[in-house]
Amino acid sequence: MKIGVFDSGVGGLTVLRALLPRIPNAEYLYLGDTARLPYGSKSQATIARYAVSSSQFLIDQGCEFLVIACNTASALALNEINQTAAPHGVPVVGVIAPGAAAASAGSITRDALVIATSATVHSHAYASACLSHQLRALEKACPLLVPLVEEGWIDHPVTAEIVQIYLSELRTAATEAGSTPDTLVLGCTHYPLLRAVIENVVRQLWPASPPQVIDSAEAAALQVQAQLHVNGPKTRPGPGEMAPCRFFATDSVTKFCDLGSRFLGQPIDEVQLVDLGG
Amino acid sequence: MKIGVFDSGVGGLTVLRALLPRIPNAEYLYLGDTARLPYGSKSQATIARYAVSSSQFLIDQGCEFLVIACNTASALALNEINQTAAPHGVPVVGVIAPGAAAASAGSITRDALVIATSATVHSHAYASACLSHQLRALEKACPLLVPLVEEGWIDHPVTAEIVQIYLSELRTAATEAGSTPDTLVLGCTHYPLLRAVIENVVRQLWPASPPQVIDSAEAAALQVQAQLHVNGPKTRPGPGEMAPCRFFATDSVTKFCDLGSRFLGQPIDEVQLVDLGG
Repeated sequence: MKIGVFDSGVGGLTVLRALLPRIPNAEYLYLGDTARLPYGSKSQATIARYAVSSSQFLIDQGCEFLVIACNTASALALNEINQTAAPHGVPVVGVIAPGAAAASAGSITRDALVIATSATVHSHAYASACLSHQLRALEKACPLLVPLVEEGWIDHPVTAEIVQIYLSELRTAATEAGSTPDTLVLGCTHYPLLRAVIENVVRQLWPASPPQVIDSAEAAALQVQAQLHVNGPKTRPGPGEMAPCRFFATDSVTKFCDLGSRFLGQPIDEVQLVDLGG
Repeated sequence: MKIGVFDSGVGGLTVLRALLPRIPNAEYLYLGDTARLPYGSKSQATIARYAVSSSQFLIDQGCEFLVIACNTASALALNEINQTAAPHGVPVVGVIAPGAAAASAGSITRDALVIATSATVHSHAYASACLSHQLRALEKACPLLVPLVEEGWIDHPVTAEIVQIYLSELRTAATEAGSTPDTLVLGCTHYPLLRAVIENVVRQLWPASPPQVIDSAEAAALQVQAQLHVNGPKTRPGPGEMAPCRFFATDSVTKFCDLGSRFLGQPIDEVQLVDLGG
C-alpha cells in the first residue's frame, strides 16, 4: 500500500510521524509544496489550484491513498482534491474532520477552541465540522506562529508572549460568547511543535480547568488506520526501523532536510526536488 | 513611458510611492506576485523562476522600463531578469545597487549595517555592492519582520521587542568585527513601514552616535529618475492627483487592496488578478 502524505511544507511530517507506528507495513511518499508555501495566508482559488496539482503528483507516483496533512488545504480544497482523486479510486483523508471528531470525543462542556491559519479560520471548516458533532467551536487565526516555528524560535520567550496574546484574545471572545471550553484544537500542522508553550499558556489562562490540547495529526493517523482496517503493530518498530519513506519538495531540498527532521523526529537524508510549475 | 514595478507582494509599493512624485508623467504598472510570496525564505532557483515570469508579464504588457522593487529578487535574480528584458531593449533597475550607493554616500566611518530577508542576506548581494564603494557591510537576516508587517503589528510592543533582539545581535557582531557603523540599510521593502520602531531601537542601542537609517526605496527611485533624465516636477502633484497606475496581483485582489493602500499611502481601488501559472 502506497500512502501519499501532502502538506504545503514540512509541518505535515507530524502526521507522517503519527502514521508510521500505526501503519508500519505501508510505503510512504511525502510531498512538501515548499516553493509555494505558505498556503494559510492565500485565497481559496490559489490554495485549491496548488493542492490539486500536489495531489495529482502523488497520484501520478502511484499513491493508493491520500492524506492531506495540511489543515489549510483540508479546510479549503478537500472537494477539489476529492474530484481529482476519485476517478483513480484513491480515498482522501484530511485533518479537519478527524480533529473535530477527536475534540468532540474529549469534550464534556460541548465548547471547543480552535487555533489555525487565517485561511483555515476564515473558511470556518473546523466550526462546521465541530457543529456536526454538536460541538460549538470558537476559532482564532494565529498567523505569526508558523513564521516563529519556521524561524526555530520554539523555546523563545517572544513566542510564549505571542501565544499568550493570541490565547488571551481567544479567552476574551469565549467569555463574551458564554463559552466554557474544555478542548483546544491545534488546527495547523506547525503548532504541535509549540505544544509545550501552548499548554503552559493554557494553564496560566484557565488555571481552574485548563482545556485539553488536541493534536489533529494524531487524530488523522487514527482515521487513516480505521479506514485501512489496520490493527496497530504487535511490537513497536525498534530504533532505526522505519517504513520506507520517499520525500519530495518543490523548493530547496537542503532546507527541507534541516527543518523536516525536527518535525519528523528523525533525520531525513534524501529529498527529491520536483517542479509542479509556477 | 510605461514603467513596470515588480515585487513579490505589496512591499514594493513603497518604491512606487517614491517614484510617483519624481516621475509624474509616466504610466505605471505594478505587479505583486502574491500567490507565490514570500520570496525571502526560498531558494535562488525558485526565486529566479518566479522573478523572470513576473518580469516577462510586465514586458508583455508593454513596459519600457523595469524596476525590481523586491530586494530578494534584486539580490538573487537580477542577471536572469536582465537576460529576459535585454532582447526587448527594456532597462532594469533593482534596489540593491541604489541602496548600497546611498549607504556609501552617507557613511564617514565606511562601516554599514544591512537588515534583510534570509535569501538576500545569504546571497551577500548588499555586502558585494557596498564593497564596490569601499564600504564594509555587516548583514543580518530578520525573517520575522515581514510576517509582523503583514499581520499589521506595526506599533505592537512585540515588534519592538523582536527588532531589539535582531539589532542587538547585529550590534554584538559589529563589535566583534571591529566595525563602527554609521549607516543602517533597510534591505527589504517591508521594513520602511517599521522605520519608526527601528529608529527608536537604533537610538537605544547606539545612544552616542546612532547609525542613519537608509531606505532603498527612495534610493531606487532617484536612480530611475537619473537613468530617465527626468527632472523633478516643478510643482508637486496636488492631493488626489496621481500618475495613472494599474495594479496586478497573482492572489486575492481584496487583500492586495487592503494591505497595499497602507504601503502606497493612498487607496487602491482596482486590482486585476493574473495567473502566472503554478
